[in-house]
Amino acid sequence: MAREIERKYLVNSSCFKDLASSSQRIVQGYLSRVKERTVRVRIKGERGFLTIKGESDAAGLSRYEWERELPLLEAEELLKLCEPGVIEKRRYLVSYREQVFEVDEFYGDNRGLVVAELELEDEQQQVHKPQWLGREVTGEVQYYNARLIEAPYCRW
Amino acid sequence: MAREIERKYLVNSSCFKDLASSSQRIVQGYLSRVKERTVRVRIKGERGFLTIKGESDAAGLSRYEWERELPLLEAEELLKLCEPGVIEKRRYLVSYREQVFEVDEFYGDNRGLVVAELELEDEQQQVHKPQWLGREVTGEVQYYNARLIEAPYCRW
Repeated sequence: MAREIERKYLVNSSCFKDLASSSQRIVQGYLSRVKERTVRVRIKGERGFLTIKGESDAAGLSRYEWERELPLLEAEELLKLCEPGVIEKRRYLVSYREQVFEVDEFYGDNRGLVVAELELEDEQQQVHKPQWLGREVTGEVQYYNARLIEAPYCRW
Repeated sequence: MAREIERKYLVNSSCFKDLASSSQRIVQGYLSRVKERTVRVRIKGERGFLTIKGESDAAGLSRYEWERELPLLEAEELLKLCEPGVIEKRRYLVSYREQVFEVDEFYGDNRGLVVAELELEDEQQQVHKPQWLGREVTGEVQYYNARLIEAPYCRW
């Protein structure tokens, strides 16, 4: 189980799409959305994943994360067991100055929301910000994917 | 993901221990105890497992089950993320007329409780009952391990 350290930003322009090296459709649901022990089932492109996360630290920067790849068929079956409501989004990988941003463009009830995440080596690492990057929202719970199921962007 | 079909019985004598072919200590906790999507972390002897179960059918006889073995170290770390309270028990394997009963003798707050489970090929399969087998409790929710965490046997 690794500790995941990341910062999260809004995105203020769609020009990141032209810069993306690749994109994949993601569908994910939750077996548990309790913040101390989130259990997520994700289908990313043609691959399935089961991910368990612990609670974030006070700054919302880091949290324990355990992940295991699953056969696609098992992920599809587990997705049916999940709480009602799934998150659908497209994830773009966008490089900028030796950093790779994961930019999530949400669909469905969260259409209009675009969020960029950057995984860090350590909490002090400096972030070089591309022009399309907007306000930092690290640790703001309304942007958690688990929260977007009960309080989707269309209702903000 | 398989459908697990099983019947559960109380045990009315400790003579099953002499008949057991083997026994293993089990410690287990829950990432989710919601009955529609239980997520369990188990250490059984020296092996770790992650198990996800769906809701039981009306008779309490069958439920969907997905299980994956984990490295022991990962299971130990995930156990720390679980809800407060763990189940500790010893599981004995006891053969009787070509059936293998799993007999769980509970420790801690559930000491005194001994339950036998028999996995079936199908719901119509006849059960041959050894003398030490007591009342059937299939589907009685107070005997669910997930329930024993919040309402242990010592408080019945």
